[in-house]
Amino acid sequence: MVKMVEYEDASDEVRAVYEDIMAARKTDWVNNFWKALATHPDTLKRTWKAVKEIMSAGALDPLTKELIYLAVSVTNNCDYCIHSHAAAARKKGMTDEMYAEFLDVVGLANSANRLANGYGVPVDEAFRRF
Amino acid sequence: MVKMVEYEDASDEVRAVYEDIMAARKTDWVNNFWKALATHPDTLKRTWKAVKEIMSAGALDPLTKELIYLAVSVTNNCDYCIHSHAAAARKKGMTDEMYAEFLDVVGLANSANRLANGYGVPVDEAFRRF
Amino acid sequence: MVKMVEYEDASDEVRAVYEDIMAARKTDWVNNFWKALATHPDTLKRTWKAVKEIMSAGALDPLTKELIYLAVSVTNNCDYCIHSHAAAARKKGMTDEMYAEFLDVVGLANSANRLANGYGVPVDEAFRRF
Amino acid sequence: MVKMVEYEDASDEVRAVYEDIMAARKTDWVNNFWKALATHPDTLKRTWKAVKEIMSAGALDPLTKELIYLAVSVTNNCDYCIHSHAAAARKKGMTDEMYAEFLDVVGLANSANRLANGYGVPVDEAFRRF
Amino acid sequence: MVKMVEYEDASDEVRAVYEDIMAARKTDWVNNFWKALATHPDTLKRTWKAVKEIMSAGALDPLTKELIYLAVSVTNNCDYCIHSHAAAARKKGMTDEMYAEFLDVVGLANSANRLANGYGVPVDEAFRRF
Amino acid sequence: MVKMVEYEDASDEVRAVYEDIMAARKTDWVNNFWKALATHPDTLKRTWKAVKEIMSAGALDPLTKELIYLAVSVTNNCDYCIHSHAAAARKKGMTDEMYAEFLDVVGLANSANRLANGYGVPVDEAFRRF
Repeated sequence: MVKMVEYEDASDEVRAVYEDIMAARKTDWVNNFWKALATHPDTLKRTWKAVKEIMSAGALDPLTKELIYLAVSVTNNCDYCIHSHAAAARKKGMTDEMYAEFLDVVGLANSANRLANGYGVPVDEAFRRF
Repeated sequence: MVKMVEYEDASDEVRAVYEDIMAARKTDWVNNFWKALATHPDTLKRTWKAVKEIMSAGALDPLTKELIYLAVSVTNNCDYCIHSHAAAARKKGMTDEMYAEFLDVVGLANSANRLANGYGVPVDEAFRRF
Repeated sequence: MVKMVEYEDASDEVRAVYEDIMAARKTDWVNNFWKALATHPDTLKRTWKAVKEIMSAGALDPLTKELIYLAVSVTNNCDYCIHSHAAAARKKGMTDEMYAEFLDVVGLANSANRLANGYGVPVDEAFRRF
Repeated sequence: MVKMVEYEDASDEVRAVYEDIMAARKTDWVNNFWKALATHPDTLKRTWKAVKEIMSAGALDPLTKELIYLAVSVTNNCDYCIHSHAAAARKKGMTDEMYAEFLDVVGLANSANRLANGYGVPVDEAFRRF
Repeated sequence: MVKMVEYEDASDEVRAVYEDIMAARKTDWVNNFWKALATHPDTLKRTWKAVKEIMSAGALDPLTKELIYLAVSVTNNCDYCIHSHAAAARKKGMTDEMYAEFLDVVGLANSANRLANGYGVPVDEAFRRF
Repeated sequence: MVKMVEYEDASDEVRAVYEDIMAARKTDWVNNFWKALATHPDTLKRTWKAVKEIMSAGALDPLTKELIYLAVSVTNNCDYCIHSHAAAARKKGMTDEMYAEFLDVVGLANSANRLANGYGVPVDEAFRRF
C-alpha cells in the first residue's frame, strides 16, 4: 500500500528514530513495520515512543508483555504482528513449549468468550469490585 | 438465555464437576459460567477439563496465563470473561499497576495490528523460521 | 441513540413495512430493531427486503439460516441479535439441546481459528478448488 | 511458525491420533492443521477429541454443524479454516447454491449486528426467556 | 473458492450488472469482487444495488463514505477490501497524507475501544440522548 | 473495574491533564473515560496527547475523523466509545441523517468484507500500487 522508507532515503528525523530502534534492540537493521510508518514521520515517532514506554520492564516483565501483545495479534489474525512479535518473544526467552501453551490459552479464551456470550451469563456479584 | 443450574438442583454428574471446581479453587461456591454450562453436561465436563489442563502451571505460570486469557477477552469485549478472569488474576497476584500496564499493551497491540493491516506491511524474511 | 418509531407515529411508508413484517411473521407487533431502522426509511426498506429474500427457504432451510445468523452474532457478541435470532430460531424448532450443540461448535471454531492463525498453518493443496 | 510433524517422523502417541483421524474420515492423509498441532501432542489430542465429539451427528446434523463452523471462520477471516471446512462441508453435501446462500446470511448478519450496535437497539421484553 | 464469471461467459442478467458497474465508474473493466458474486446472480444484484444507493453522495460525500468503509475493512483485516476501497478513495481525492491520518485514527480507536472495555468505563449521563 | 479519579481527589499531574481536556473542549467537566485512565497517569497523559494530535484538523477535518473513529467503535461494539464519539460528532455537526448514512456504510462494509473472505476474492492487479 505504501513505498517503505529505506535508511538511505530517510530524512534526518526518520533516521534518528531508526537509530534509536537499532540501539534499543541491539541490531543493525530496522523491520518493515517501521519503514512503512516512516512514510508519515509523526506516526513513526508517536508509535515508537509508545512501544518503548509500554513494552519495557515495569510491573510486568518484557516477555509477559510480548505474550499479551501476541494474544491480541493471534485473536485479530494480524499475520505481520504474529511473526514480528513471536520473533521478539523468542529473543526474550519464549520456547516452543511456552508458545504451544500460550496458543492453548488463546484458543480456550476465544472459545469461552463465545460460550459466555451465547449463554448470556450474568456477571457474579463477587466479581464486581466497586 | 438459559436457566442456570444451582447445586441443589444439579444431577450427580454435574455436582461432581461443581465439587471439583470448588476443590481446585478452594472456594465454597461456583460462578455463573459453570452454572450456565451445566444445562448441557457434556459442555460443562469438556470445558472444565480443558480449563484445568490449560490454565494450570506448565512452561508458563498461572498468572501469565490469566493475563493472556484477559488479553483475548478485552480484545473481544466479553464483559463476563473480563470480570471473572480479572478476579482470577488478582487472586494470583495481579496488582492495579500490573493491570494498567497490561491494558496499555492490549491497547497498543490493537492499534499496531491495524497500522500493519492498513499499510500492508510485508513480513520480514528474518521473522520467518521455516 | 435514536428515538424509535412507533406504529402510531409512523409515516405511511414505514407503516407499509411494519405491516409486511407482521404479515410475514404472523404477529401483531414489530420488534425494536425495525423501529430503530425506521428513523431512516431507506435503511428500513433495504434491510427488510434483504432479510425477506435471504432468510426464507432456498437451498438451505430457514432454521439452518437462523443458526448461521446466530453463529455470526455470538462471535461478534451482538446482544440484541443473539436474543432476537435465538427467539426466531426457537420459533422455527430450535430446542435447548440444539442450541447447546450449536454453541459447542461456535466455541470450537473460534478456538481452532486462533490455533490455525498462531501456528500459521498453510492451506493444503487438496482444499484448493481452482 | 512451526515445523509440521509428518507421519514418518511422528511419535506413537501422535501416530495414534493420525490413524484415528484417517479412520474417522476414511482418507489416507492428514491435513496440515493436525500436523501443526502435533508439535504439542496434548493440544493435538484435546482438539481432536473435541472435534470428534462436537462435530458428529447429534441434535444437529453434521452438515449444519459445518455451516455453523464456517460462519465463524468467515466472520473471523481465517483463511485456513474457510478452506478446510468448506471442503468438509462439500463432502457432506454442500452445493455451490448452498454456499452462496450461506454467505448471504453471513454477510447480512455481520451488517445487521452493526446496525443494532450503532442504533443502540434495546432488547425486546418478548425476547427474554428468564 | 469459486470460479469467477468473466464478461464473455456471463448471462445477460449478469452482463447487465457489469455494464451498470462500468458505466457508474466510467471504466471498461469489472473488478474481481463482482466476478465472484456473479456466481450467484441474486447476491450480485442485491449487493450492487446496495453499493450504488449507499456509497453515492447524500448527507455525506462519497470520499467520506469510502473512508468509513475503509475503517471497517482495516479493523476487520479484509485485504481485498482494503486494496479495492483504498483505490476507490484515491480516485475520489484521498492523498497519502489523508490515508496516514486516517490510519492514525483507526489505530487510536482500536486502542481506546480496549481501554474502555478493560477499565469497564460507564457511559456518562451527558452522552445519553433519550 | 477501577475506581475513577474525580477532580477533587486528583494529583496535580492528573489535574493538569483534566484542565487541558476541559480547555480544549470548552467544557467544565471531564468524561468517565479520562477519570478511569487517571488511575494510571502515564496512560492518561499518553492517550490524551495522542487524541489531541490525531483528532485535530489536518489533511482530514475533525468531523470526518470522528466518523472514522465511530466506524471502528461500531464494528467492535464498544458501547462507551459509540456514545462518547457520537456525542463528539454531533457537536462537530453530525446530523441524524448523516449518522444514518454512516451506519448504512458501516453495515455494508461489514457485510462485503465477509463476502470477500468467503468467496476468497483475489486482489486485482490494478489495485496494487507498488
